Amino acid sequence: MELTQALRRAALLKGPQLALEFDGEQFTWSAFADRVARLAAAYRSLGMGPGDRVAVLAVNSGRYVEQFFAPLWGGGMMVPINTRWSVPEMIYALEDSTPVLLVVDAQHSHLVSDLLKGAPSIRHVILAEPQGEGELLDYEALIAEAAPAPDAGRGGDNVAAIFYTGGTTGRSKGVMLTHDNLFFNALAGLSNLFFHPNTVHIHTGPLFHMAAGARIYTTTVAMGRHVVVPGFDPLTVLKTIQEKHVTHMVLAPTMLNMLVNHPDFQDYDLSSLELLSYGASPMAEALIRKIIELVPQAKIVQSYGMTELSPVATSLSPECHWPDHPLFSKVTSAGQPIFFCDVRIVDEGDQDVPRGEIGEIVVRGPNVMKGYWNKPELTAEALRGGYMHTGDAGYMDEDGFVFLVDRVKDMIISGGENVFSAEVEDVLMKHPAVLECAVIGIPDEKWGEKVHAIVRFKAGEAAGSDDLTAHCRSLLGGYKIPRSFDFWTDPLPQSGAGKILKSELRKPFWDRKDRGIS
Amino acid sequence: MELTQALRRAALLKGPQLALEFDGEQFTWSAFADRVARLAAAYRSLGMGPGDRVAVLAVNSGRYVEQFFAPLWGGGMMVPINTRWSVPEMIYALEDSTPVLLVVDAQHSHLVSDLLKGAPSIRHVILAEPQGEGELLDYEALIAEAAPAPDAGRGGDNVAAIFYTGGTTGRSKGVMLTHDNLFFNALAGLSNLFFHPNTVHIHTGPLFHMAAGARIYTTTVAMGRHVVVPGFDPLTVLKTIQEKHVTHMVLAPTMLNMLVNHPDFQDYDLSSLELLSYGASPMAEALIRKIIELVPQAKIVQSYGMTELSPVATSLSPECHWPDHPLFSKVTSAGQPIFFCDVRIVDEGDQDVPRGEIGEIVVRGPNVMKGYWNKPELTAEALRGGYMHTGDAGYMDEDGFVFLVDRVKDMIISGGENVFSAEVEDVLMKHPAVLECAVIGIPDEKWGEKVHAIVRFKAGEAAGSDDLTAHCRSLLGGYKIPRSFDFWTDPLPQSGAGKILKSELRKPFWDRKDRGIS
Repeated sequence: MELTQALRRAALLKGPQLALEFDGEQFTWSAFADRVARLAAAYRSLGMGPGDRVAVLAVNSGRYVEQFFAPLWGGGMMVPINTRWSVPEMIYALEDSTPVLLVVDAQHSHLVSDLLKGAPSIRHVILAEPQGEGELLDYEALIAEAAPAPDAGRGGDNVAAIFYTGGTTGRSKGVMLTHDNLFFNALAGLSNLFFHPNTVHIHTGPLFHMAAGARIYTTTVAMGRHVVVPGFDPLTVLKTIQEKHVTHMVLAPTMLNMLVNHPDFQDYDLSSLELLSYGASPMAEALIRKIIELVPQAKIVQSYGMTELSPVATSLSPECHWPDHPLFSKVTSAGQPIFFCDVRIVDEGDQDVPRGEIGEIVVRGPNVMKGYWNKPELTAEALRGGYMHTGDAGYMDEDGFVFLVDRVKDMIISGGENVFSAEVEDVLMKHPAVLECAVIGIPDEKWGEKVHAIVRFKAGEAAGSDDLTAHCRSLLGGYKIPRSFDFWTDPLPQSGAGKILKSELRKPFWDRKDRGIS
Repeated sequence: MELTQALRRAALLKGPQLALEFDGEQFTWSAFADRVARLAAAYRSLGMGPGDRVAVLAVNSGRYVEQFFAPLWGGGMMVPINTRWSVPEMIYALEDSTPVLLVVDAQHSHLVSDLLKGAPSIRHVILAEPQGEGELLDYEALIAEAAPAPDAGRGGDNVAAIFYTGGTTGRSKGVMLTHDNLFFNALAGLSNLFFHPNTVHIHTGPLFHMAAGARIYTTTVAMGRHVVVPGFDPLTVLKTIQEKHVTHMVLAPTMLNMLVNHPDFQDYDLSSLELLSYGASPMAEALIRKIIELVPQAKIVQSYGMTELSPVATSLSPECHWPDHPLFSKVTSAGQPIFFCDVRIVDEGDQDVPRGEIGEIVVRGPNVMKGYWNKPELTAEALRGGYMHTGDAGYMDEDGFVFLVDRVKDMIISGGENVFSAEVEDVLMKHPAVLECAVIGIPDEKWGEKVHAIVRFKAGEAAGSDDLTAHCRSLLGGYKIPRSFDFWTDPLPQSGAGKILKSELRKPFWDRKDRGIS
């Protein structure tokens, strides 16, 4: 399978119909496919060869959606860069993936000179805006001047995109997802998320994340309509749903919460909504009830997975969200394995644990990544025995529902973003005053969890919260920076093996054991 | 992908729930998977090695459904045999596919000694009935005595089944379908046919045909319930829909017609029906209106394809069957290409013809067969340029709907069965009195088309219809035997190249050019 086939098919079957809307611009499927074919030709003439990378650093836009196809159409791959990263983090991903082209938007063009210093592989930088500016290549001029290239037809097991994800080792890893990986995820989504040719999908989440990015492919395979907004802003989303008759949406529960609690919520007509899907963290029962009350016609579906799974592994169906349905007892679960996923719960020796017992969740299927870019050892470790080791702890009940109980990987999910504690701890330890530290997630009304640091200083030394915060900000993306600090004088509690016992540290903040949070 | 994964998943997620019902027998998903695992072990102990074939000659039953998994679970393949064939035709397929095991039901056990003479590869014959009989191996004893085998995990590009299909060369061909081929078809079906975990599918069509057989996999991937009836009998089907709350059904239009025109139709509660799908031939508008009147809650979907496409290539959505919908203008089409199918209309040089012009329909996608068993040259010819050449002539309109206008291959579709004229003509030519002949399809109220032969005898010789019918019956399956004859004394009309002009012969029987029939 080629992901570009979905675009070719939509252009063939729905050529004159609207495919993509963003900020007043509208493109039909014919125009969309034509622009992608021209961009692909331009990228090739700028030096993109088979398998070469095109990095993208931008907030959501119609032009970002085109990056999900144009590099692939030309035989290359896309590498989306997290806009929330610090410059050193961006440079790390660019050095690692060695793209030949960089596509940026106006919001990020000021970073280009710094990025180019650290990433010499980049030959050209393209400004993805309606008009050109400065020395960067003009996106629309490239399109206008190129003749459409034929689809390179590079599909199947070839990598389509590299999505960077946080890592327990303190450095992010490039997850290689193939055309087949992403096409399978789209096919499952058609059925589990009730996509159809009249679907109108609003893309609100950052497209450099798989949770939002994968929907570009699902919507295209379904031949639905893409409606893009720059990012999540409750009022913009409400307005857009009403104006564009949006049917499908994916949001983190924290964002859904902001949406339904917005004071102007009742002013908007949301009767077009058919499907609300969420992931990243559990949804409170009160929020579910509120959504059902406010948009009773909309189905609610939870997806659980990770970038390495393209990204969905389990799905919690609409019935499980209906308070009067017998399956409502499963609402605290992450749902059941999707069609082609073998999901097992295993012990440290990769042996199945009995049903109901806690172990690590491992997944096999055609949606499992090809591997980590440039990291054969980490790949072999993650995929040992043919199963992706999620690092999440959980159990499976007698009906095959998977319940997450903790993260084997020490990860915090804050507003839908994954923060790996080890990465933040590494940075704190670089501060000259810090002797030891632990970073944990603690409850937060708005973001689900927030990053909290417990720090012990060297004898005779100290630093304030502001100092530590500034130190972190110089090296980490904003969402990773601790929002609060505790300063200890006693040693942090350790296990017999000398590991800090984070469960002890978390206890005072969490009064009950909950999904994904302990 | 392994097709057996679908069964493993259903057993994991819905173990204690009903999976399969047939003739008073009921099996849960756990029991179904356990029986398949035991059968697989038994087949292996009887000599089935990796890639070995298990032939099946039976009418529909629960045990037939188990054949869609047990050989695969053990690492082998299934070869269904058409029960409507003559013994020489059956022997041809058995000689060609060289199975090590043959599974028969009581209705066909009297043929075993003849078949074994012609097919020496068969080492054991198993009687697929609740109780044993005579010298054949007892199916239930095999299950009871075997320990469950682990799934061989032979999936992906490995062949799962060989389905025999008629050929223009006068001999049937074994179509090799892989695990991936059939899994992709099932995934598309989930969405296009609105399958869900509460689907109850009645299997009425003969399972040795892909049109019915593929639904075994779709239903299993969806974790729906299989309800099996021995064959199509209108009253049994009506009763079963009511009793088992059937939601999904696939029928040829001729059978749908018999169903809705059955005098007792109104006595049955068919309110559970959600989806009626059909293929093989177009549906008359009057029939569509009648169905909508009688079962207004049911969606109607047409699928077009062929065995070589696992089997679906295009799908005509429910809206296209609603007389008040703008898309009703497409109801005479075969629908649009399904998600992963590239469908093109090409000329004799495999070049695209302009939209709206007639050419041969060719298809590329992950559902295209691996090839014809033992026939590398026919395979290369059929799959030239990477596209399956369907042999069907048609055009694509500006909205991507495919209209069939004729068959490039000279084929008659009678009651859902494909009859290749060349095969019947070959047999007629073996009769000592026949000088030349042509076999065509002519209109038939009940079966859509019926097989009609035009025969010219050698000088001074002749034969009656009865004599020719008996001659055909000795060599051909019943559905291929001409139902009527015309005897000519003049030469049959020929083209400049010396080919009989069948279009001329068909004209008097058909007053309008219609889909699939000219």
